[in-house]
Amino acid sequence: MAKRIEGFSKLSKEEKTAWIAKNFSSDPTAFKNVFATYNHPNPSVQKIHDEFIENTLANFYLPLGVAPNFLIDGQWFTIPMAIEESSVVAAASKAGKFWSDKGGFTTEILGTEKVGQVHLNYFGAPQKLFEFFEQKKSELLTRLEPLTASMNKRGGGIQSLELIDRNAVLEGYYQLDLRFETADAMGANFINSCLEQLATDFLSEAAATFESHEQPEVVMSILSNYVPNCVVRASVQTEISRLGNTPEEGLAYAKKFVRAVEIARVEPYRAVTHNKGIMNGVDAVVIATGNDFRAVEAGVHAYASKDGHYRSLSKAVIEENTLRFWIDLPLALGTVGGLTTLHPLVRQSLEILGNPSAQTLMRVVAASGLAQNFAAVNSLVTTGIQKGHMKMHLLNLLSALGATEHEKAQVTRMLSEQTVTNASVKAALSSIRNG
Amino acid sequence: MAKRIEGFSKLSKEEKTAWIAKNFSSDPTAFKNVFATYNHPNPSVQKIHDEFIENTLANFYLPLGVAPNFLIDGQWFTIPMAIEESSVVAAASKAGKFWSDKGGFTTEILGTEKVGQVHLNYFGAPQKLFEFFEQKKSELLTRLEPLTASMNKRGGGIQSLELIDRNAVLEGYYQLDLRFETADAMGANFINSCLEQLATDFLSEAAATFESHEQPEVVMSILSNYVPNCVVRASVQTEISRLGNTPEEGLAYAKKFVRAVEIARVEPYRAVTHNKGIMNGVDAVVIATGNDFRAVEAGVHAYASKDGHYRSLSKAVIEENTLRFWIDLPLALGTVGGLTTLHPLVRQSLEILGNPSAQTLMRVVAASGLAQNFAAVNSLVTTGIQKGHMKMHLLNLLSALGATEHEKAQVTRMLSEQTVTNASVKAALSSIRNG
Repeated sequence: MAKRIEGFSKLSKEEKTAWIAKNFSSDPTAFKNVFATYNHPNPSVQKIHDEFIENTLANFYLPLGVAPNFLIDGQWFTIPMAIEESSVVAAASKAGKFWSDKGGFTTEILGTEKVGQVHLNYFGAPQKLFEFFEQKKSELLTRLEPLTASMNKRGGGIQSLELIDRNAVLEGYYQLDLRFETADAMGANFINSCLEQLATDFLSEAAATFESHEQPEVVMSILSNYVPNCVVRASVQTEISRLGNTPEEGLAYAKKFVRAVEIARVEPYRAVTHNKGIMNGVDAVVIATGNDFRAVEAGVHAYASKDGHYRSLSKAVIEENTLRFWIDLPLALGTVGGLTTLHPLVRQSLEILGNPSAQTLMRVVAASGLAQNFAAVNSLVTTGIQKGHMKMHLLNLLSALGATEHEKAQVTRMLSEQTVTNASVKAALSSIRNG
Repeated sequence: MAKRIEGFSKLSKEEKTAWIAKNFSSDPTAFKNVFATYNHPNPSVQKIHDEFIENTLANFYLPLGVAPNFLIDGQWFTIPMAIEESSVVAAASKAGKFWSDKGGFTTEILGTEKVGQVHLNYFGAPQKLFEFFEQKKSELLTRLEPLTASMNKRGGGIQSLELIDRNAVLEGYYQLDLRFETADAMGANFINSCLEQLATDFLSEAAATFESHEQPEVVMSILSNYVPNCVVRASVQTEISRLGNTPEEGLAYAKKFVRAVEIARVEPYRAVTHNKGIMNGVDAVVIATGNDFRAVEAGVHAYASKDGHYRSLSKAVIEENTLRFWIDLPLALGTVGGLTTLHPLVRQSLEILGNPSAQTLMRVVAASGLAQNFAAVNSLVTTGIQKGHMKMHLLNLLSALGATEHEKAQVTRMLSEQTVTNASVKAALSSIRNG
């Protein structure tokens, strides 16, 4: 049973890599060497990266690119994007420039509230629990003050504490619902610390009030990544006549564009991919700035399903002679704490963005998502998505086949009117090589 | 207007970096130097990474760790995970071992079908469109054969083609719905190429049949990342007596665990974070193996909302003396094509997994997601999530403050019974440094 191991986490990085190489690679030496070339040249910098997680073997490279020329609320931004997918940064750059030439992106923060809950079981009389809660509420909040003092200084803190009866969905289920402002922090640690303290205090108060058979029980205490009241809106608009060479062409384009967005409102199969394109633009900035994209993804997609039907996050309308296109995105982001000071490239990304506040970062991310969505829908309703995609795909296939720059240029010319498949690229390359 | 630029994409990588440094950094030289230290030592390898996307400035490091000791369908796996969040790999390793000691993970592929659609406008008589479609269907499929030949050889291809009337949700809206099997490829390029060809052929056939005022129009042609028929199930189970030191303790634990999962079934605020934890385990493997996590995220969260209510993706029940815990995940993954052959660390990750088929990768990813979910819920219903999280958070804070290994050990001891906050860590460190 060589592929099972005891005490792996206790091994050094070199020992871990050696065990993996020996048991899983057909060429252990080459395997170890590849990992080694991906180390940072400065061991103390490498150590920082190794310590972010556990059992680290290497630095996985995600390309970090930039999309320049985003005019957002009158200010110019170059947006850092960490993403492995070809065409995304090019599309962002193109769409950013297109809209920045037409007044740019306008954004609005619709809210910044975060939520956490202590999930309770209680099978006694509801009124008794509510009376107990009202009696103890200010005491419970007071006991959280040592945890919230530092956040209060930064303009954040606890906004409200409520007891919520959720028996309608699950028998005996109640919540202590805490609402927070977390300033420039994403706030997960702060919120979870407050919730766990609240749960402890609540139980100790309850012990003196309730009889043993009706004691409330804490199931768990945890922040929510669902943030429907922490939302930013980004919008663009232009006269329809600017969307074509003639007013008629502009109107035809605008109508088709609006129709494509409408389809993504009503058809979940389309909505999922429509929103996936938005998240290409969102996640790339979220990662580059050291935020947690799983949290953002979960919150955004749940928001897309909030009316009982999974829908497009963006909307488009034609009003008189204007096309308006906008998006509301729930985004809980931080520009302090977490990786923001620890990861050297996150620091560089934040510097490119002018060391933004969390709210400014929300605005930039929403503009990036809207730009990406525009670029995708624009491609789909005009040339189709494959033309641009295949150009990049072709270069990647050629790289994989070890083509020289000269061969790449030749094959690109040869296949300019043909469908790019693995087979067609191989055939074209071998026809060149065989003269 | 120095922060705006024309022709940026035409600049060399060095020129791009220099422009960014000059315009956005307070110390351009240091800024450029940091990026330079993140280059791969071999320029030809670096070139591969630069060409994945556009306007590349650097390699963003995401730590690549491994979680050993996963017994999945009787086979041992060490799972590569690329993720920036602390505790995820440790939790996966612990949960993997816990369940592998109890029979391991059992998985089942419930389907592998992918979907793509040509979205149509048509305002004529529905019956006329359906008759036209039935007449032309086999001809349309025949015309796709040059595109599908290579995929057919690998056991994939087109499974069905249907015309769907969606007037019920949007007037004049129809779909050409293509279903695919894509073998070990994720299939996005294949599917999109087929759809765009189908759209072209459909329109050219329609031109000869319909009068100009009733011509169908293609709005767009695109695969869907919603894959409710490309699903893998992963399950674990154990006798309840093995979940505690006594049978009573085991039962109490199992009941609380099931209750926590039930809460995530009925409460969207909890479901979002519950599923976010699952995606920590899913995305880390998806990224390490060169797959597109935005596509997976969008499909998974839409699936979580498919009955009109955003819910937990996992389920837990107590049956007689057994706790059963399982998850169904829609996962469209590839182990050939895309980055899989191009990115050296993706190749290494796939080698660690035994160069799996797409179906085997689905099984591994689902097991990783389920393990992560177990670890999170287990922490929440026992010690709370902050204890483990704070240990890692503390080390990160200490690294940011430049603490030595000796200082880290001292502060960890000092704060073992205290709440870890930025302030408490700073205070502890300065109390050590000031003797």
